Amino acid sequence: MSTKQKRFFLSEDDIPRYWYNIQADMVNKPMAPLNPQTKEPLKPEDLYPLFAKELCHQELDQENAWIEIPEPVREYYKYWRSTPLVRAYGLEKALGTPAHIYFKNESVSPIGSHKLNSAIPQAYYCKQEGVTNVTTETGAGQWGAALSYAAKLFGLEAAVYQVKISYEQKPYRRSIMQTFGAQVTPSPSMSTRAGKDILTQTPNHQGSLGTAISEAIELARTTPNCKYTLGSVLSHVSLHQTIIGLEAEKQMEMAGEYPDVVIGCFGGGSNFAGISFPFMRHTIKEGRKTRFIAAEPASCPKLTRGKFQYDFADEAGYTPLLPMYTLGHKFAPANIHAGGLRFHGAGVIVSQLLKDGLMEAVDIPQLETFETGCLFAQAEGIIPAPESCHAIAAAVREAKKCIETGEEKIILFNLSGHGLVDMASYDQYLAGNLMNYDLPDEVIAKSLGE
Amino acid sequence: MSTKQKRFFLSEDDIPRYWYNIQADMVNKPMAPLNPQTKEPLKPEDLYPLFAKELCHQELDQENAWIEIPEPVREYYKYWRSTPLVRAYGLEKALGTPAHIYFKNESVSPIGSHKLNSAIPQAYYCKQEGVTNVTTETGAGQWGAALSYAAKLFGLEAAVYQVKISYEQKPYRRSIMQTFGAQVTPSPSMSTRAGKDILTQTPNHQGSLGTAISEAIELARTTPNCKYTLGSVLSHVSLHQTIIGLEAEKQMEMAGEYPDVVIGCFGGGSNFAGISFPFMRHTIKEGRKTRFIAAEPASCPKLTRGKFQYDFADEAGYTPLLPMYTLGHKFAPANIHAGGLRFHGAGVIVSQLLKDGLMEAVDIPQLETFETGCLFAQAEGIIPAPESCHAIAAAVREAKKCIETGEEKIILFNLSGHGLVDMASYDQYLAGNLMNYDLPDEVIAKSLGE
Repeated sequence: MSTKQKRFFLSEDDIPRYWYNIQADMVNKPMAPLNPQTKEPLKPEDLYPLFAKELCHQELDQENAWIEIPEPVREYYKYWRSTPLVRAYGLEKALGTPAHIYFKNESVSPIGSHKLNSAIPQAYYCKQEGVTNVTTETGAGQWGAALSYAAKLFGLEAAVYQVKISYEQKPYRRSIMQTFGAQVTPSPSMSTRAGKDILTQTPNHQGSLGTAISEAIELARTTPNCKYTLGSVLSHVSLHQTIIGLEAEKQMEMAGEYPDVVIGCFGGGSNFAGISFPFMRHTIKEGRKTRFIAAEPASCPKLTRGKFQYDFADEAGYTPLLPMYTLGHKFAPANIHAGGLRFHGAGVIVSQLLKDGLMEAVDIPQLETFETGCLFAQAEGIIPAPESCHAIAAAVREAKKCIETGEEKIILFNLSGHGLVDMASYDQYLAGNLMNYDLPDEVIAKSLGE
Repeated sequence: MSTKQKRFFLSEDDIPRYWYNIQADMVNKPMAPLNPQTKEPLKPEDLYPLFAKELCHQELDQENAWIEIPEPVREYYKYWRSTPLVRAYGLEKALGTPAHIYFKNESVSPIGSHKLNSAIPQAYYCKQEGVTNVTTETGAGQWGAALSYAAKLFGLEAAVYQVKISYEQKPYRRSIMQTFGAQVTPSPSMSTRAGKDILTQTPNHQGSLGTAISEAIELARTTPNCKYTLGSVLSHVSLHQTIIGLEAEKQMEMAGEYPDVVIGCFGGGSNFAGISFPFMRHTIKEGRKTRFIAAEPASCPKLTRGKFQYDFADEAGYTPLLPMYTLGHKFAPANIHAGGLRFHGAGVIVSQLLKDGLMEAVDIPQLETFETGCLFAQAEGIIPAPESCHAIAAAVREAKKCIETGEEKIILFNLSGHGLVDMASYDQYLAGNLMNYDLPDEVIAKSLGE
């Protein structure tokens, strides 16, 4: 047993005062999102009907590398930030690896995941601009819980469309949102045209993030003083999440090390962006050799098997056209237990970075994720969210390589959330009821309209 | 919005190296537990068949005020300690109170509550003494989860008897224990004589902590190399929990304040002891004026309506006779949602302290606890365990008094755990299905055999 330091914290004064906007430093800028009507490059004003204005400008900002975090947002960040950077001595020992494994523990946030990092500024900017109601979609419920809490902090009313299968399978998340005072509706619902269209065609539709996004956007468009918010995919969400990596950078310095490999699980890309981009700027600007690995589910492999093309972010086609790796916006993922990773596309920034070879992607089968989750729980005492298990599994693969090569690589991954509200999924795994899903090429081709 | 510091942490080097044994400083020592066969005062050796020897000595130690925390235990404490001391600015603002409210956030532990503070040393001492199997009972599952994880850390097999109604109502806790590798059995079960006796008399018995204790003790007695462990009530458990108050003492110093009131919820007494005893030593030794308040459920009011007498800690009468405030060891509490507080008696130390007027007790009706829990969740972002809601409710009562008097009292309470695995209870509350229970005097008198 080591007596070296296990956890690293920043003092409240050292919590970063700026988010990092990687777009400003990218050599190849992300291609422009397109207005779906005109097919012209999107301007911030085109997004005003949907989002708080400040967020529209952040979304398309390719100039400013540093965006100041508003003081009230920083004050609420202090409720749980800095999150600890943890040296995973327990996991290292369980694996017998010479690698040094670190993880950033975002599970300690009030709502149990990194999502609050963006929910608070989104609610803040809405409040600043006189908005009274916010709406969003949620899959597993992590984002919905975050927005519900953030809305309450700023006195906004929140309406959340939750993917129906999660609403039914994960009632605890719904209760959490309701405890924070939000209205929660299972999606698809009969309360929107988008929902009605789907339900009349497919009466028992289980829901998808794409559908829930369509419903929330429709509510925002048809309700006075109501704005839409999104928990991943978009560039301003990734921007807010860079607080994770910026803290981690300072904390790795406290530990006296710099990562050789940085890993995040991948749904729409925001937690991966959060842990990666601050380190990636040293790769871009100083040529520092670090590998960045996005870990996605084998059953929703947009990065490893998707296609780079313009696509919608939602089922009904309400959003701008985004240049991204996608499985097609009508892709219906298998009913896997990592609800937060069941999105068909990747954000525009990460898509460009992957295209340019600045990052890599791996896909992880479901059984490997839960096997790794149980190993991690027993070694480090934290039951990880099924989403986060993908990052841990990728980290474990890298750490095992080090056993063979004898290298003492420095591996850093983001523990995006805990799994305490996902125990039903662990139950299914422990009972032997889960399986891997083989996704045939034809299904992807068909979804992409090929 | 204040810009003052929100959370206070200790560096790993400042985590206390000793637990505090208040028995050594008490003017009136606790009365001796009695051997149930001989009615003679209990000697450590009498407890050897049940507990690790070191724990038996800690249990009855009235000499040594400071007990060294073994190095391996401190190393595992570092996985989550120090826990933050938090200034509850959000709650203060929501109440509009001039009081300064602080809470010690024990919910950040791997298993979500303070219970791990004692589970780790108990598992450690068992391992040291060559034990291979440990067993215990659990109500809501917090202690069972803690022991399951601690056993895994030291390579011990764990068998947990969970009160049947909790086993059925809170399946997530069972899954957590199983994820950590423990065997979990609903109690009463047919696997022990004690369980069989109860089930043959009352086939649909919902279980109680008293019954589950009897089953676990019987398993320990009849299994080679197996020891029993307990999550509260006993003096060595309270001893381990003093890490909470010892940290809080240093952290309150960082905040530049000293508490006027210290509050903990009360089941068997260990989390209350943990937050209180280190501060109480200044009351005992230096006459410092601090109020100590134990908050118990109105439906299980051992401190406010029980009787001080010798009683068993379990249903079947396997344990030593303890001098304690009790509702009678056959008391069957109402089916309230604060499962961890449904125990009929109080530990011998707190019982003596209450008798001597060094502490107070209040009882809180169920609806007030959930109302306060929702208020706290919205103000501080943490959904508290139903048990912890009792402490918050008592703190809110004190803070409201300060609104009337204008006093800036310093209130400190222990947030013993989060409620993320108890969302079904919040669901019931939000749906309006919960009620208060009026416990008639006759029921208590009958249970006490009067």
